[in-house]
Amino acid sequence: MNSLRGSAQKDLVRWPSSSGPPLEAPDWQGDIRARLSKTQGREHQKVAALFAQAGIEIGGHNPWDLQVHDPRFYGRLLAGGSLAAGESFMDGWWEAPALDQLCCRVHGAALSDKINDWTTIGLALKSRLFNRQNQTDAPVAAEEHYNLGNDLYQAMLGRWMQYTCAYWRNAESLDQAQENKLDLICRKLKLKPGMTVLDVGGGFGTLAQFIASNYGCHVVVYNISSEQVAYGRELCQGLPVRFEQRDYREAIVEPAFDRIVSVGFFEHVGHKNYQAFLTLMDQLLKPGGLFLLHTIGGNISRTTTDAWLDKHIFANGVIPSMAQLGVALEKGAREPGRWVVEDWHNFGPDYDRTLLAWWHNFDGAWPTLQRKYGDRFYRMWKYYLLGCAGGFRARKLQLWQMILSRGDVERYEAVR
Amino acid sequence: MNSLRGSAQKDLVRWPSSSGPPLEAPDWQGDIRARLSKTQGREHQKVAALFAQAGIEIGGHNPWDLQVHDPRFYGRLLAGGSLAAGESFMDGWWEAPALDQLCCRVHGAALSDKINDWTTIGLALKSRLFNRQNQTDAPVAAEEHYNLGNDLYQAMLGRWMQYTCAYWRNAESLDQAQENKLDLICRKLKLKPGMTVLDVGGGFGTLAQFIASNYGCHVVVYNISSEQVAYGRELCQGLPVRFEQRDYREAIVEPAFDRIVSVGFFEHVGHKNYQAFLTLMDQLLKPGGLFLLHTIGGNISRTTTDAWLDKHIFANGVIPSMAQLGVALEKGAREPGRWVVEDWHNFGPDYDRTLLAWWHNFDGAWPTLQRKYGDRFYRMWKYYLLGCAGGFRARKLQLWQMILSRGDVERYEAVR
Repeated sequence: MNSLRGSAQKDLVRWPSSSGPPLEAPDWQGDIRARLSKTQGREHQKVAALFAQAGIEIGGHNPWDLQVHDPRFYGRLLAGGSLAAGESFMDGWWEAPALDQLCCRVHGAALSDKINDWTTIGLALKSRLFNRQNQTDAPVAAEEHYNLGNDLYQAMLGRWMQYTCAYWRNAESLDQAQENKLDLICRKLKLKPGMTVLDVGGGFGTLAQFIASNYGCHVVVYNISSEQVAYGRELCQGLPVRFEQRDYREAIVEPAFDRIVSVGFFEHVGHKNYQAFLTLMDQLLKPGGLFLLHTIGGNISRTTTDAWLDKHIFANGVIPSMAQLGVALEKGAREPGRWVVEDWHNFGPDYDRTLLAWWHNFDGAWPTLQRKYGDRFYRMWKYYLLGCAGGFRARKLQLWQMILSRGDVERYEAVR
Repeated sequence: MNSLRGSAQKDLVRWPSSSGPPLEAPDWQGDIRARLSKTQGREHQKVAALFAQAGIEIGGHNPWDLQVHDPRFYGRLLAGGSLAAGESFMDGWWEAPALDQLCCRVHGAALSDKINDWTTIGLALKSRLFNRQNQTDAPVAAEEHYNLGNDLYQAMLGRWMQYTCAYWRNAESLDQAQENKLDLICRKLKLKPGMTVLDVGGGFGTLAQFIASNYGCHVVVYNISSEQVAYGRELCQGLPVRFEQRDYREAIVEPAFDRIVSVGFFEHVGHKNYQAFLTLMDQLLKPGGLFLLHTIGGNISRTTTDAWLDKHIFANGVIPSMAQLGVALEKGAREPGRWVVEDWHNFGPDYDRTLLAWWHNFDGAWPTLQRKYGDRFYRMWKYYLLGCAGGFRARKLQLWQMILSRGDVERYEAVR
């Protein structure tokens, strides 16, 4: 782009000094347009070739085909990769009738790995060098995302206010699938009345409420989001549930819990903290205890999330791989090799369905939300929900529920 | 020992030149005995302290306590670690009323990591430097172990001739538990009539027989053990089962199989070959295919097995860890990140029960085997079966069944 601009500017200041008489004034504006369109043409070709690898046609007639509204999209995408793709969507530069299907194809062909943009490289470098999920930076995620407004989440998440993957086995509706998930967690943990349960993350407190009301356990929740904690405290009045609006690293280090559960929180822990996180859980769990870890997982080991998601949705989020978890589980305990994975359940495809349900709820409720959040937010949120749905449908993302023990339990009978 | 021997030898050549008259000839043989017993005393103390960490008393009255028949045991153990422990048991230098309970405690306290003997260090070094499971060395395991004699295995393994972990859910007998395991594998693989199945490893061919007779599939088995292949061919006469007495690396590289199953074979693959093994499986599996990998797993990443097991039972065996498998799964495909772990089932405690059943069968049949195999073999085999049972009971060893796809399958419904 620089060389083009330089060349165009030259034409502005220098008058052509040809020897023959000028028949007409030189069309330098037309020249810029021509050069611009030549560059855009090259960029268009390059982007079209890229998308063709995923079976996506620019201007095609399939629901997953890409419709470009602003030709500057091509150059922006090539220079800015995944971040530019999302931001240009937010700006209305492109659209697709079925954004989830387009994203599934983009993930399936790993297109974002084929554009080496500086944002992604910079983010990766920053994540390798710094601990972006330390106690100072961790609240950023909570402030920016989880405190957006409970009205938004209430409209989107349905009755159970569960902002994590539902379990769609034998479920027809989102509410049923979320209730199934809550009960699945309790059954996997083999909860019994009077047990003490630590919930790391906690969300809106509905899991704590479910455990306390239906299984008669005492629950302690660690969550740094003020909005979520306020919601949870209101909800759990009269139940043996205590909310600590604090970083999990502030927990008193003693084996006080029969069970630990962490649902959709590990994605905020960060690869540099996996071992310390697991070591702390080892210290907090009583002998004979079980720990259910519910997290999104990735097929490839990375140290950052997608650059667009990092900037607009989950600041400092990182999705673990099996390789990273394997190493962390081996080393992340008071003595290496203490943790035993009793069961590792993958129901990734259920996140696709959950995200679509959230999208339909959000889209349906938009008239009541539009005034507060604005149209750019709508496009951002659409890109977030349907883009992630595509990632799960392409099976590049998984949903893992693991049951961990220290091997001091009876033969663990996995439930589904 | 050297300094003692040197000092004892000095006494042999030099006569004491004390100023006073010798009242009697110096008792130098008694002197050696005294010094020897002093050394043995120190060694005894050291070994006793080591075992005390695991709650094991030398000469104690619990079934897991260690009874020493030859005091040279202490020095041999300290110098030779795990290899010496097993070999001195084979030599009858020590015993325990409940060897499995003793071994469970030894594994639980990780005692073998606390003796840094040269055999273990040498083995670890060799495994890091060399590919001990290459095509030339791999047959060693088959020749030495699996061809020992089918009479031995028939006596030990029961009706199904399954030399891998049984599945004891709803089973009372070994035969029932092995049948459960065979059926569990078929149900997990969602077998349908007419499917082509590759069995890598194959054992005595009973899984191939089960699949072909009960699920109507065509099976190809790769196995390098001549005894096992002969047994399997006899068994599968008239069934659509083909045995290839060849290394798995000789398979024709084309996506010819709807399903792949490998039961108790990965322990022979070797950490240097995990990626190549998984890449080959990716190449052999048809689109939409499933691969069931059944393997022993370890809590800690290692590149060798126990030195005694390596020498006497499984030459060149290596047990994978979750961390090693995670890395291999990520990279071991035509494109990184293709494999999706649909389900990871751990039923390690069932191997304890399986090994005990094998031990009871073997022990009961010993009168018919004794003449051929001899008493040292009996002690070796006892140490092998009960020692491994202890490892599983201590939960340092796991039994993993993983279902792998390339993400191009319907939502996988895990069965148990």
